[in-house]
Amino acid sequence: MADIPEDAREVDALDMEGRLLTPGLVDCHTHIVHGGNRASEFDMRLQGASYEEIAQAGGGIVATVAATRTASETSLLESALRRVDALIAEGMTTIEIKSGYGLDVETELKMLRVARRIATLRPLRVRTSFLGAHSVPEEYVGRSDAYLDEVCLPALDAAYDEGLVDAVDGFCEGIAFSTEQIQRVFEKACLLGVRVKLHAEQLSWLGGAALAASFDALSCDHLEYATPADAIAMARSGSVAVLLPGAFYFLRETKLPPLDALRANGVAMALATDCNPGSSPLTSLLLSMNMACTLFRMTPQEALAGVTIHGARALGLADVGQIKSGQKADLAVWDVAHPAELSYRIGFNPLHLRMFEGEIT
Amino acid sequence: MADIPEDAREVDALDMEGRLLTPGLVDCHTHIVHGGNRASEFDMRLQGASYEEIAQAGGGIVATVAATRTASETSLLESALRRVDALIAEGMTTIEIKSGYGLDVETELKMLRVARRIATLRPLRVRTSFLGAHSVPEEYVGRSDAYLDEVCLPALDAAYDEGLVDAVDGFCEGIAFSTEQIQRVFEKACLLGVRVKLHAEQLSWLGGAALAASFDALSCDHLEYATPADAIAMARSGSVAVLLPGAFYFLRETKLPPLDALRANGVAMALATDCNPGSSPLTSLLLSMNMACTLFRMTPQEALAGVTIHGARALGLADVGQIKSGQKADLAVWDVAHPAELSYRIGFNPLHLRMFEGEIT
Ligand SMILES: [Zn+2]
Ligand SMILES: [Zn+2]
Repeated sequence: MADIPEDAREVDALDMEGRLLTPGLVDCHTHIVHGGNRASEFDMRLQGASYEEIAQAGGGIVATVAATRTASETSLLESALRRVDALIAEGMTTIEIKSGYGLDVETELKMLRVARRIATLRPLRVRTSFLGAHSVPEEYVGRSDAYLDEVCLPALDAAYDEGLVDAVDGFCEGIAFSTEQIQRVFEKACLLGVRVKLHAEQLSWLGGAALAASFDALSCDHLEYATPADAIAMARSGSVAVLLPGAFYFLRETKLPPLDALRANGVAMALATDCNPGSSPLTSLLLSMNMACTLFRMTPQEALAGVTIHGARALGLADVGQIKSGQKADLAVWDVAHPAELSYRIGFNPLHLRMFEGEIT
Repeated sequence: MADIPEDAREVDALDMEGRLLTPGLVDCHTHIVHGGNRASEFDMRLQGASYEEIAQAGGGIVATVAATRTASETSLLESALRRVDALIAEGMTTIEIKSGYGLDVETELKMLRVARRIATLRPLRVRTSFLGAHSVPEEYVGRSDAYLDEVCLPALDAAYDEGLVDAVDGFCEGIAFSTEQIQRVFEKACLLGVRVKLHAEQLSWLGGAALAASFDALSCDHLEYATPADAIAMARSGSVAVLLPGAFYFLRETKLPPLDALRANGVAMALATDCNPGSSPLTSLLLSMNMACTLFRMTPQEALAGVTIHGARALGLADVGQIKSGQKADLAVWDVAHPAELSYRIGFNPLHLRMFEGEIT
């Protein structure tokens, strides 16, 4: 009580009867606004269809781009809200939402507008990331630099002008964009004064994490193929390592992110759902915590920090993710006896109460 | 309508507006009644503790046996109901519940009584399995045959006399009981006229599946190390293969059950949560379905059959698990456009409506 400012002491006390109190959870990496789903593709693949057959049937990211382009803002919003509500039911109070399934100016903006509207309809905080450099759309295959010049960078300008961009993200990978191309996007972000982050070293090592660190990135995300040198670079820049065990699980990856090097260098590790239709159709931060422990051998304490203080830091939010004076009163109360129970259980939601900015919701 | 008996045609129609209708889900393998949880042990292990250190701290199955023995029926019931409610929320209408954490006569009966009481407090069907041959308790270490004679078989008699035994189960494994010992338990079950099932070939091959098949077992469960010959034996006996991907995931197993041999021989494959505190603290059949697809490469159709018709068959229930005349009206209605969505999503519950024996619940 001595630490509480005098004018804040006159409050109603809530007796939580010995339950666990944590900060509200932060999901710092999602693609939760998107059209359609890829259940048929999942089905086809398990029935033995090849990648060619799936592509011929219109599958892959192309399917999500097409569905997102044709969806109305209302239908995008409605489908996203169902997924957001699943996260809210588990005590999530802050969510990051990316564009990146439009890949044309109009649809990139539509996605970000829908993301912003979610915060007007639900008690939560939304941070938006512009991810025009997510994939090269069909109409620009073989002309990815032209895509950047003619679509991605103009879309970033337009989104920025509309106040829709909290951060700029990219996908640095053989199937997406090179480090040189990502650098061009980041240089534009710098001109606009917007912080950057990057999908880096997920399926192979390309040097994206070091590039992002050189731009003082908020975070480098995925990182399965990152090296100890990358961890050192991220430690220097203060970039958070956002680990995404849901995608690791769903894609049946075997290469683990360099946990020991991240720990040894004091890189903050966040966790997120990566909620997306192609590689992580996951809408549970509690499951992300379990997967981080089970698959990555993170400790339950690391997992909890990953969806609270470190998740907030990956979003550049200094007043979210902790329980202390000066923080937003985003809280979660859990019906558990031991904090490790949040990570230990699989498919069980022990949330007792959720508070967003001081309001029980 | 032509197939519906005339006297059943005068019913109120419910318009489900194009949603997916399935049988109510069947969880045919759980240890959902148990004392305590093993979150601290999970925590210790991830902090680097050895198995010896965990054992010295009272961890392992010994911890669950101690907590189950000291728990009152009321507290066992309350903790089980929280987990059962998570399954009900996903459309589960039939659950199998095993004893096996008592390992003394009194506590084995207490567990089965609690299991039966669940069916009086919630709208669901409970089938009980006597699993006295689950583990050798501390007081009988090195004297497992004496445990069978002095505790397990007398407890089976007592439980049978009280009407608490729908099936007899065992754990055939190096760390539990040999095929010879399981055979003694099964012979007793035959004398009582009770069907058998077995935890078989999970961590190593011991021949349990073939033994169980020779007793016309309802099911053989786990089966990671089962062989094509075992699949042939199970096909002959009509035993269901109950696959438990939650335990496979949580224990980070790498040896896959022989899916192709099971398919080739026409062995019915069921799926279940194996809900238990030590190796599968899982309370979601939908997640079991996703894990079966993701980890075992089952198809979404196989996964759905695994938690409906084949789950029911693993429990010897002929009037559950299908939608047709003569079946119990246990139904689930889902807010999905494609049946594969039930398996595709991770940590999302699209249940719209649940019906148990004709009542919406
Ligand atoms: Zn992503
Ligand atoms: Zn079991």
